[in-house]
Amino acid sequence: MTTSREIRLKSRPVGLPKASDFELATVELAAPGDGEVQVRNLWMSVDPYMRGRMYDRPSYVPPFQIGHALQGGAIGEVTASNDPDFKPGDVVNSMFGWREAFNANPKALAAAGMGAITKIDTQGVPPQAFLGVAGMPGMTAYVGLLRVAALKDGDVVFVSAAAGAVGSVVCQIAKLKGHTVIGSAGGPEKVAFLKSIGVDHVIDYKATPDVVAELAKVAPKGIDVYFENVGGIHLEAAINSARPFARFALCGMISQYNETGKPEGPPNIILAVGKSLRLEGFIVSNHYDLYPQFAKDMGEWIKAGKIKWNETVEDGVERAPDAFLKLFSGENLGKMLVKLA
Amino acid sequence: MTTSREIRLKSRPVGLPKASDFELATVELAAPGDGEVQVRNLWMSVDPYMRGRMYDRPSYVPPFQIGHALQGGAIGEVTASNDPDFKPGDVVNSMFGWREAFNANPKALAAAGMGAITKIDTQGVPPQAFLGVAGMPGMTAYVGLLRVAALKDGDVVFVSAAAGAVGSVVCQIAKLKGHTVIGSAGGPEKVAFLKSIGVDHVIDYKATPDVVAELAKVAPKGIDVYFENVGGIHLEAAINSARPFARFALCGMISQYNETGKPEGPPNIILAVGKSLRLEGFIVSNHYDLYPQFAKDMGEWIKAGKIKWNETVEDGVERAPDAFLKLFSGENLGKMLVKLA
Repeated sequence: MTTSREIRLKSRPVGLPKASDFELATVELAAPGDGEVQVRNLWMSVDPYMRGRMYDRPSYVPPFQIGHALQGGAIGEVTASNDPDFKPGDVVNSMFGWREAFNANPKALAAAGMGAITKIDTQGVPPQAFLGVAGMPGMTAYVGLLRVAALKDGDVVFVSAAAGAVGSVVCQIAKLKGHTVIGSAGGPEKVAFLKSIGVDHVIDYKATPDVVAELAKVAPKGIDVYFENVGGIHLEAAINSARPFARFALCGMISQYNETGKPEGPPNIILAVGKSLRLEGFIVSNHYDLYPQFAKDMGEWIKAGKIKWNETVEDGVERAPDAFLKLFSGENLGKMLVKLA
Repeated sequence: MTTSREIRLKSRPVGLPKASDFELATVELAAPGDGEVQVRNLWMSVDPYMRGRMYDRPSYVPPFQIGHALQGGAIGEVTASNDPDFKPGDVVNSMFGWREAFNANPKALAAAGMGAITKIDTQGVPPQAFLGVAGMPGMTAYVGLLRVAALKDGDVVFVSAAAGAVGSVVCQIAKLKGHTVIGSAGGPEKVAFLKSIGVDHVIDYKATPDVVAELAKVAPKGIDVYFENVGGIHLEAAINSARPFARFALCGMISQYNETGKPEGPPNIILAVGKSLRLEGFIVSNHYDLYPQFAKDMGEWIKAGKIKWNETVEDGVERAPDAFLKLFSGENLGKMLVKLA
């Protein structure tokens, strides 16, 4: 038997999640059954989108269930295998985060069409990067910027939550393609990081009384692309500064995830008519046809040193709820990770 | 000399325009000069978008100037011509509305690329229809529904201001293509008209305490296309009821045109992310490449009796400001027109 500790959802959070909404439990894993592998997780991801799965409502992914372990991206190492395609020592990506170890049947998961267990050839890249720049967040940046916002020559790009796991990749892809990039982030450490990766103008929204006016100041000719991670005043600022035919990739609106009242919508949405703006929401899982191209491009960019990243790491599965909560206070710089082994 | 009365902008309206923001003036027209035509207007159009030109701000069309005649679509008859391409009796479309007669140089206007004077072959259609279903509003409906919202088989279509000049054409194009159509309009007369043109579900927003709940009720499986003319609660309702990958053609937001405070944006805009919604503003003048196809299709539909329309007519140029104001109280059924001769 293998002992695994895991984090379960104890109660559905109201507003900002609290530590007491989660509980730590211990389970004993039998040896893997027919067709199963056993995996010891090395790293797990916490991502803002997980907040949405804590509500009990229809969405593009089913809600987390009370009393069950949470789920999410994880990188682990196969420790035992009854699937001929996997052998002990293989590094794998799965959706079995929030726990130290698990048994799963890779073929059954693949047949079900979601949460597949996939082997990773790390090619010298640290394995946890496959939860960040080389994984879902990096792919989200790539899809949102290049397909949804349809980046084209000469575009001025504005990115909110620009120092985050997704935003920092958006900034760097836009920079390596030669664009002027404006990033918004909170606090001097993030500002310094964004300057270090070549962002042209950084707005420290925590130090700026008026994000709308500040964006208008640093982008006097306006913006053509907005990569939306935050919502609220950032969306208003982007609409205000948008040039005609600007495209907005709506990736997330973290400022609203814990809202319990009626959030404010963009009061200037009417400008979308006269400026012919396109605001388009997207979910990365609908764009996996781009994965091979992403993997090739991102692999080359990483090897060439063109993509840099930061990690904020918490240690041990018992720290996972704290790591998750820090996403909403913005305490992470770059990818927020939990080291499990 | 020809006497022409015209309506000038006397002051920039604050909030809802008032009669005193306009003034009636009389001008004497000389005989047309070299290359010029003289036109006596038969009909002029008032359209919601004109409110935007009364603000002094940058937009896709320049603002109206204080002390000058307003402009807008008009149908007239050539009364004298020094341009070999025009002869007395020709029926022409121009942007010289808000006046009884005018002199203009068709070739110079065409060279300037806007507000051209074009001859109309009415083919038995009443000439004023070229200010409505067969003109700019009809073209707006066509472009917005078929190109911007990219209507496709099986789509459920929601239209606000559905009994208006644009909305009623949107409803009918969607119906003749076999779609389920939900229209919102205010008052029993408009509701009856929409039912008479085959709209499947009509929401009388003036009689409905909660447009969001009402749309959810009449479209239990959701909507795929929203043709936006109104803004406010209608936009919120559409976002709430949108199915994944729904497309919104943002044509106008008349509920906000006279707003003097900070309007409320859609509080549920965050749903655009998880549902992968596309909200896209458009201006019909950017889509005139579709005009020949529109003219062909609309001509056939009108001949086949597949497109019906209503007109609300005021008589005399002195009534034009009143006609314009009625757009904002919703007193028009179908196209609002002023008969000038």
